[in-house]
Amino acid sequence: MTKLKLTAAAAALAVLPGVVLAQDSVPGVNASTDSVFIFNSLLFLMGGFLVFWMAAGFAMLEAGLVRSKNVTMQLTKNVVLFSLASIFYYLIGYNLMYPLGDWAIATTKIVDGEEVVIGYLSGVFGPGVLEAVGVTADAADDYSYASTGSDFFFQLMFCATTASIVSGTLAERIKLWPFLIFTIVLTSIIYPLQASWKWGGGFLDAAGFLDFAGSTVVHSVGGWAALTGALILGPRIGKYKDGKTIPMPGSNLTLATLGTFILWLGWFGFNGGSQLAMGTVGDVADVSRIFANTNAAAAGGAVAALLATQFLFKKPDLTMILNGALAGLVSITAEPLTPTLGAATLIGAVGGLIVVFAVPMLDRMKLDDVVGAIPVHLICGIWGTIAVVLTNGDASLGTQLYGIVVVALFTIITSGVVWMILKATMGIRVTEEEEINGLDMAELGMEAYPEFKAG
Amino acid sequence: MTKLKLTAAAAALAVLPGVVLAQDSVPGVNASTDSVFIFNSLLFLMGGFLVFWMAAGFAMLEAGLVRSKNVTMQLTKNVVLFSLASIFYYLIGYNLMYPLGDWAIATTKIVDGEEVVIGYLSGVFGPGVLEAVGVTADAADDYSYASTGSDFFFQLMFCATTASIVSGTLAERIKLWPFLIFTIVLTSIIYPLQASWKWGGGFLDAAGFLDFAGSTVVHSVGGWAALTGALILGPRIGKYKDGKTIPMPGSNLTLATLGTFILWLGWFGFNGGSQLAMGTVGDVADVSRIFANTNAAAAGGAVAALLATQFLFKKPDLTMILNGALAGLVSITAEPLTPTLGAATLIGAVGGLIVVFAVPMLDRMKLDDVVGAIPVHLICGIWGTIAVVLTNGDASLGTQLYGIVVVALFTIITSGVVWMILKATMGIRVTEEEEINGLDMAELGMEAYPEFKAG
Amino acid sequence: MTKLKLTAAAAALAVLPGVVLAQDSVPGVNASTDSVFIFNSLLFLMGGFLVFWMAAGFAMLEAGLVRSKNVTMQLTKNVVLFSLASIFYYLIGYNLMYPLGDWAIATTKIVDGEEVVIGYLSGVFGPGVLEAVGVTADAADDYSYASTGSDFFFQLMFCATTASIVSGTLAERIKLWPFLIFTIVLTSIIYPLQASWKWGGGFLDAAGFLDFAGSTVVHSVGGWAALTGALILGPRIGKYKDGKTIPMPGSNLTLATLGTFILWLGWFGFNGGSQLAMGTVGDVADVSRIFANTNAAAAGGAVAALLATQFLFKKPDLTMILNGALAGLVSITAEPLTPTLGAATLIGAVGGLIVVFAVPMLDRMKLDDVVGAIPVHLICGIWGTIAVVLTNGDASLGTQLYGIVVVALFTIITSGVVWMILKATMGIRVTEEEEINGLDMAELGMEAYPEFKAG
Repeated sequence: MTKLKLTAAAAALAVLPGVVLAQDSVPGVNASTDSVFIFNSLLFLMGGFLVFWMAAGFAMLEAGLVRSKNVTMQLTKNVVLFSLASIFYYLIGYNLMYPLGDWAIATTKIVDGEEVVIGYLSGVFGPGVLEAVGVTADAADDYSYASTGSDFFFQLMFCATTASIVSGTLAERIKLWPFLIFTIVLTSIIYPLQASWKWGGGFLDAAGFLDFAGSTVVHSVGGWAALTGALILGPRIGKYKDGKTIPMPGSNLTLATLGTFILWLGWFGFNGGSQLAMGTVGDVADVSRIFANTNAAAAGGAVAALLATQFLFKKPDLTMILNGALAGLVSITAEPLTPTLGAATLIGAVGGLIVVFAVPMLDRMKLDDVVGAIPVHLICGIWGTIAVVLTNGDASLGTQLYGIVVVALFTIITSGVVWMILKATMGIRVTEEEEINGLDMAELGMEAYPEFKAG
Repeated sequence: MTKLKLTAAAAALAVLPGVVLAQDSVPGVNASTDSVFIFNSLLFLMGGFLVFWMAAGFAMLEAGLVRSKNVTMQLTKNVVLFSLASIFYYLIGYNLMYPLGDWAIATTKIVDGEEVVIGYLSGVFGPGVLEAVGVTADAADDYSYASTGSDFFFQLMFCATTASIVSGTLAERIKLWPFLIFTIVLTSIIYPLQASWKWGGGFLDAAGFLDFAGSTVVHSVGGWAALTGALILGPRIGKYKDGKTIPMPGSNLTLATLGTFILWLGWFGFNGGSQLAMGTVGDVADVSRIFANTNAAAAGGAVAALLATQFLFKKPDLTMILNGALAGLVSITAEPLTPTLGAATLIGAVGGLIVVFAVPMLDRMKLDDVVGAIPVHLICGIWGTIAVVLTNGDASLGTQLYGIVVVALFTIITSGVVWMILKATMGIRVTEEEEINGLDMAELGMEAYPEFKAG
Repeated sequence: MTKLKLTAAAAALAVLPGVVLAQDSVPGVNASTDSVFIFNSLLFLMGGFLVFWMAAGFAMLEAGLVRSKNVTMQLTKNVVLFSLASIFYYLIGYNLMYPLGDWAIATTKIVDGEEVVIGYLSGVFGPGVLEAVGVTADAADDYSYASTGSDFFFQLMFCATTASIVSGTLAERIKLWPFLIFTIVLTSIIYPLQASWKWGGGFLDAAGFLDFAGSTVVHSVGGWAALTGALILGPRIGKYKDGKTIPMPGSNLTLATLGTFILWLGWFGFNGGSQLAMGTVGDVADVSRIFANTNAAAAGGAVAALLATQFLFKKPDLTMILNGALAGLVSITAEPLTPTLGAATLIGAVGGLIVVFAVPMLDRMKLDDVVGAIPVHLICGIWGTIAVVLTNGDASLGTQLYGIVVVALFTIITSGVVWMILKATMGIRVTEEEEINGLDMAELGMEAYPEFKAG
């Protein structure tokens, strides 16, 4: 559309042959249905760009928590994994996650007497049509919910988040290309398939499994994939020596803090957008409570980690506090709506405590998780999924555990098979020399901070 | 809510026993009232997440302006103060700021023949209900304004901003725990009490005191608390020597610049959201003018600081330019609506000049303000509150000064008492050796940039 | 407006003499027209703050890609250029871009029986009125589109983006003040004049030239101005030696990555907001498709650059991948609506390839572009403008080329004249000694990272 005077714009609006946008015809006609459609789509767009921003949060968090010799690699992985997720979720994942029958739906609808493009021409060579979640082939439904493009945009960001979780755990030793190939499989198949069981209306949904915004469907899936990879990949050289854990402090805590704030911000879209509707008084009130609860849980996690590290180690630990906030966020993700503010704070606080206790526990098991993603996303993802039963009367503990176990088994097995194949074929780990010198020079030939001497 | 097909979703919507969300019933019924409620709530949510982002801005600004040996501590303070504000504003502050009678209001309303959750179950153990600002016990009002959760989310961020202002001034020498305890008192009691005088409909509001988004209520309160703390705490070791001010340059100007841009972005939510309504043509037009004026004032402040430092010092000073932009933002905050774009630019420019002259003036008074928060938030907060009379015909200079003085006295006295008690009991200042070695190793045992040697 | 109980607020609403905001009168009256106006204004506000954020993205990208001795200068330029754009686009540019007749329109309208401020008092000393794009002097139109303030806010950000593009190319050798003076001319006159030919309804628009969000109007204009400046300024000392290009790696790739993510996020507002309307089902569906396509193009560009650098150089190159993502974004900007997701990915991928081939090509021409802005914004701006014909049946290749050439000639000539005058009068390049020592100490006397030794 051009940015000119309305009179000229009216003609320019007809950018697609045979399609006229509906602006002129709206006033006075069916305004409330239009508003619901627009508000719902807007929620997806806002939620979507906030969750997009989480990709930057993961990149900064991980770049801050690895050593400087591996920073360029970590940045490269984060930018590329998001890009691959964007392409492969579109090519394969989205259609795997939601029933394919929708492809047959026409792309335009008659709204207020005008033909309007609501569906999305997705095919490269032909007019495949993606339709929105919650939309059936019935034209009336189609028009009353939200636009396909907004839904696709929002759902894509959840798929990409799952992939982002994996990169941190495996940092500083995994080769670039096998990691990227794993990302493609994860975002094309593993994530969408299991997500369809809950969010695509599959058997977990039918069983009554509750996971509002993805403590299990997103966070624990990323966590299981990371855990499986870490077990097959092994710890970094020198990390565990003579029964002791050698600290390998992150190179830049400011970036790690920035990443945490970015993720915290993005989570309002992650959880709030998962209400999937904002077009009624009740929906927007729910979205509001979700925003407030999400914030409360993060605060609870951070303060719990502060207190726990002060009491246990006599000194507050910033990286634990940051992971505590993230743990609080993951913990509230399975049910951000029904808790009170106080309950949300406590659910988050338990998450923060889990991190403080789980990080050294994993180290005792010689499970080397560079950024703490397994405690944060996997263990707190499980905790959050269980915590649903505390505030939501519709949840059953048995069903929640059933969902957790089913998703765990599926993700461990599929991820494990992919990691093993990658290990057997191209190898997944850099050489000892490359690891000691850092992945940046070995694999990329480029330093992140070329002018600053490491001390 | 689940993310599945609408037919399944319809059943899943009944997540709360006895409560049905209103989506199906909306079309054709009372659409305009619904829209006003949704737009107003949406303004609070958008404004709220933008102001949340300011917490990251303060963290980056301060981390960039302290020396590297104190960066981890500054980051820790910023993450934790925001978390404590979230918890204590919920537990105490919000209810102190707005009348408690609202707690009695039922949590659900009948909207379009359906029972909808509008209020917010706030209690940990029982169903306390928080109701929105501007909402009376009358059900009709309740439904026609905005959701409680969105209002709480938005108001919380203002409380947290006040606390963020304090941490920068007192950096590099204050102990962690007394600072955190002060933060708790500030966000539970000092901020909410004085805020209720204006925004809770108290005596300053009745007197006709005007402070649109908080030049006084937020910024000068943070500034007075910082000033009182700085006087009791004293300057950093070596800052003033033989009548000279020794420069202690910030360790990372890129972060300081990033923090400034983040604050600038967040300020659109800070001022724009303070319109408190977006559901009518007039309100959204006002929000738009506020956005444009807020930007103009920041630009004016930055350019004024550029020109002033060029003329005074013969070289532009980036930290002054950054503080000039922030000064412009604080200056327009008391009245971002009534000025023209030109007037807004000039009001901001005066703020920028104030900073350039006030920073060396404070140094001559041996008042050590590490990041320049007192010139920016306190002095420009006062200037902004006075500047209301230039463009808003309803403002009286006498009343504006009255409000400034009342809030000043209250904040200085209460803050002073708290700082004195903290000094007398646990001490507020690290030892000389700890200060020279840096707070990071002394209090936290963790460096922000462990691999990079200080020059 | 105050933040108090509604009853008190009702009185306080009358902040402007003779003007009553319309909140109370809305329910039941003309709700759909109100909604269209509010949604459209909201799109401008959201789009505007997202594009504002791009200013931070350029600052971080450029600070990361220059050497540490020039970082403070690069940050200073970015903050100040945005501030100058804000002031001079308001003073001169906006009125040059849109017909001046609009100044005569009254500032208030009768909406639902109440007088509402819709226009914008722009004059410093008198009540000049800015009216929105797409608004005629007819009161009915005025009320049915969007608020002037929201439009101004949005349009300003595009003007500032154009200026941001120039600073990166000319980094590390241009003097501060001539650069700032060029910025003033660019944002007051060069950008607005040529933008009016397309977006102000001028002759390029009449000719059928299509440029949805500014591949030509914004990006190639910034690119041509940068190219002209680079030719007149010459390459950095030591960049080209004995027929070889000497690498001068950026000092901080984390910041460059952060900047890229910020720009990617802001681009949703850049392209999505350029739909200029969100108040109908058709418009919000279009905005949604634009969001999804914009993301797809960025992903395509990043992955194409990854693959190309792997195949050509045997090692993936992070700076190329970042510029590949940005290239994808520029490439889709001229037509983000009509492509399918697949076509958008491919259009972006071509952009990514262009960057990988154009960067060494420019070096062979001894054209020193510090951050790669010419390949990204200029060459991909041209590619994107041509690519419109691939998916939009209304576009003609001849007309697209005509628009590209006209804008190129105008920008090269006007920029060239300004650069030559600046060179002849005050000089545009620092001395050799200043360049070698870095602009930070020479022109600003301030280091960005004073504690960290360059290696």
